[in-house]
Amino acid sequence: MRLYSFPLSSSSYRARIALHLKGIAFETVTVDLPGGEQHKASYHGINPQERVPALELDDGTVITQSLAIIDYLDNAHPEPPLLASQPVARARVLAAALAIACEVQPLNNTGVLHYLRERLGVDQAARSEWYGHWIRTGFAAVEQLIEGSSYCFGTAPTIADIYLVPQVLNARRYNVDISDFPKIRAVDAVAGANPAFAAARPPFQPGLA
Amino acid sequence: MRLYSFPLSSSSYRARIALHLKGIAFETVTVDLPGGEQHKASYHGINPQERVPALELDDGTVITQSLAIIDYLDNAHPEPPLLASQPVARARVLAAALAIACEVQPLNNTGVLHYLRERLGVDQAARSEWYGHWIRTGFAAVEQLIEGSSYCFGTAPTIADIYLVPQVLNARRYNVDISDFPKIRAVDAVAGANPAFAAARPPFQPGLA
Repeated sequence: MRLYSFPLSSSSYRARIALHLKGIAFETVTVDLPGGEQHKASYHGINPQERVPALELDDGTVITQSLAIIDYLDNAHPEPPLLASQPVARARVLAAALAIACEVQPLNNTGVLHYLRERLGVDQAARSEWYGHWIRTGFAAVEQLIEGSSYCFGTAPTIADIYLVPQVLNARRYNVDISDFPKIRAVDAVAGANPAFAAARPPFQPGLA
Repeated sequence: MRLYSFPLSSSSYRARIALHLKGIAFETVTVDLPGGEQHKASYHGINPQERVPALELDDGTVITQSLAIIDYLDNAHPEPPLLASQPVARARVLAAALAIACEVQPLNNTGVLHYLRERLGVDQAARSEWYGHWIRTGFAAVEQLIEGSSYCFGTAPTIADIYLVPQVLNARRYNVDISDFPKIRAVDAVAGANPAFAAARPPFQPGLA
């Protein structure tokens, strides 16, 4: 398998964690997002949405959207499971991941921040406030949804942790105060000690970008 | 089952379509979003995220997030399937739904439009432009992902159609030009003739809100 990704893209980070948790060997192809490589014809042919990540299977099939990639990996490579099999338990785990996937990250991605700056003239202080607002709103929901004593749901990682950990990194990069979310910080510490999460982690400096 | 919903909420509309497609009898409880009922203690106890939809099962279990609700319904009530069972086909269907779930609707929901108006002072013309921009960007992606000749993927509805149809309604409500997306308009016309989609449809007037 080949993963088209960018180190600091949190969607790419999610896919990397899932691949490492599954123990699947994969090749990484870095798409230079700051350099606009995602918009070039060579990448457009791989993913017409011009976004990362994209997972290319050995037969050339390309799967896009991080949640679809993780769901695919869980179906094609069932062990260890990243989503519970019992329908209600599965819905709980998925709902926690979706609270980030649909209510935090879409509002803070590069394209949206660019629109705020270039088309609406929103200054850096107001953009930072926007960024922190959506993280803190989403984290307030996730904090209530966490049921586990080590990972979000129980003692093994699930898709909820795969979504949470990259979002915590983004909070740290942008100096968003998450001190009042003790469950989230505890899960992040547990996951940080898991070699699969550590192997997927991008290099970063606090305050970057 | 009991669905807490609001007629014009597109996330609620998705859950209604899925329930009707599955042929599941359910009771509707309208949560008055314009009146702020979602923030009252009575509803907070049902869904601490204070959002609709929320699906209450007969044993009192509550499932939140429209994608988790639809995934739950597909697992607990497998017929007719809303997601393909073959992993790659399933990933394609899910990716199309996610292009709307993660890249259109989160940017155009009431909370975000409120933030733009109240905290960033964005005027109505610029908010309309924002609204249309994210629909048109997302639809450009979905238009390329549609593979079917009647529904998005083949001749039966899937979760991709469940996400697309409410978003087309939103485009019409806000007078967003979608004339250059012929595949999307064709799918919307086919789905509109399906009694399950029709039964889930909210009343609306073009230009509303």
